[in-house]
Amino acid sequence: MSTTIQRGDQVVGELLQRINALIAEADVTYDEYQAAKQWLIDVGEAGEWPLLLDVFVEHAVEAQATRRRDGSEGSILGPYHLPDHPFLEPPFELPQRPDERGESLWISGRVTSADGRPLPGAVLDLWHADADGLYSGFSELPAGLLRGKVRADEEGRFAVRTIKPAPYTIPHAGPTGRLIAVCGWHPWRPAHVHLLVTAEGHEPLVTQLYLDDSEYLDGDIAGAVKPSLVVHPQPVGDHLEFEYEFRLAPAPSAAA
Amino acid sequence: MSTTIQRGDQVVGELLQRINALIAEADVTYDEYQAAKQWLIDVGEAGEWPLLLDVFVEHAVEAQATRRRDGSEGSILGPYHLPDHPFLEPPFELPQRPDERGESLWISGRVTSADGRPLPGAVLDLWHADADGLYSGFSELPAGLLRGKVRADEEGRFAVRTIKPAPYTIPHAGPTGRLIAVCGWHPWRPAHVHLLVTAEGHEPLVTQLYLDDSEYLDGDIAGAVKPSLVVHPQPVGDHLEFEYEFRLAPAPSAAA
Ligand SMILES: [Fe+2]
Ligand SMILES: [Fe+2]
Repeated sequence: MSTTIQRGDQVVGELLQRINALIAEADVTYDEYQAAKQWLIDVGEAGEWPLLLDVFVEHAVEAQATRRRDGSEGSILGPYHLPDHPFLEPPFELPQRPDERGESLWISGRVTSADGRPLPGAVLDLWHADADGLYSGFSELPAGLLRGKVRADEEGRFAVRTIKPAPYTIPHAGPTGRLIAVCGWHPWRPAHVHLLVTAEGHEPLVTQLYLDDSEYLDGDIAGAVKPSLVVHPQPVGDHLEFEYEFRLAPAPSAAA
Repeated sequence: MSTTIQRGDQVVGELLQRINALIAEADVTYDEYQAAKQWLIDVGEAGEWPLLLDVFVEHAVEAQATRRRDGSEGSILGPYHLPDHPFLEPPFELPQRPDERGESLWISGRVTSADGRPLPGAVLDLWHADADGLYSGFSELPAGLLRGKVRADEEGRFAVRTIKPAPYTIPHAGPTGRLIAVCGWHPWRPAHVHLLVTAEGHEPLVTQLYLDDSEYLDGDIAGAVKPSLVVHPQPVGDHLEFEYEFRLAPAPSAAA
């Protein structure tokens, strides 16, 4: 039996046993079974599998994948990353509308290796919601709004200006929202900035930074908040600012 | 909090906890997570949610739903029932092609209440696969083939002629089949006849009778075989025959 088949048999077999044991323990009825069947069909028809899984399951995958990794903690990628953010030119500012609402927010800091050695030329790919909790590329917002890549300097330092994102609800007009309603949960995520930080010879760091004054810090529907990811923006003149140091784990050597 | 919401919160919350605990215990990787996400999308696009659930989950729902029911044991309905089987005229014979292959099989017996009292006029709705393991309505077979309803007589007795069905593979060209292959399982169900038996004042009995000489009796992919459902056809003249007594549970009284 191949390793792949052994693993499929074990993991899928165990998953089915857990589901079927829960059916007995919770006395799931035929009506509930048929409703669940229709709901699973609806999730697919609404195109919500990435949403549903990224909200309810990805945090467990992320925690497991990074549990022995050195350096800064990561978080889930979520469904709103777009692969082709353009590089910005300094001074770095994420694209905004002329009348962009939301307090001005300056993010600065350093990218280092896990041991503290600076990583010159590291790349930070940033994306976040606007003051209404909307993402460009997934709403009527102009393409590319509040997204972009910046390159750290020779000391691994960077500084980028943007606006303060708002907490937002995950899309809840479809089957994922129906599930949340049936469970009496809320669909909110606390205000956060997504980052994908990369540097040569290091593992990519997918993370999110959460603003400490945001609602829902304690009840993120996606279960993706970690204490080390909560930042504390301070007012400085007419804007808010915070610093963060991203420590990247060295990539396993080719021999590993 | 409403009863519905309490139940949703409990059951869905527990299901997510079991899935996410398994991700950690089995060290599920991001690659596996992404493959699972695509597979779930594929199940929907192939229209295989009813197939997948009826094969891997319905047996648990059925066992739970009927665990305290008096009378004969039931089994899963499966995805091949059609609601509008016509009534046959006596002498009862399921519709066949002129050259229908498969040994002649006579099924007879009685429908009673759980206490043994006969149920005159009980209705038996039968459907089964042909000698190649195909179902009408889900293949190129003529519509209505090997399907029909028969009515028991004043003593609850019935007799119906058909042909011996073959074991069959569940559809395995799509995502359900890919799962089975990845787990090193086989897609076979043992030879069986489906029945839905109904009588006034009694709970419907959804069941399947398994032929004792069939392959895969011990490895039904749908996990739906129970010892009391295995029948022992005997050769009589030019055909095989077996008897079965279907004992139906009285319906709960309106006051219950
Ligand atoms: Fe987000
Ligand atoms: Fe069947």
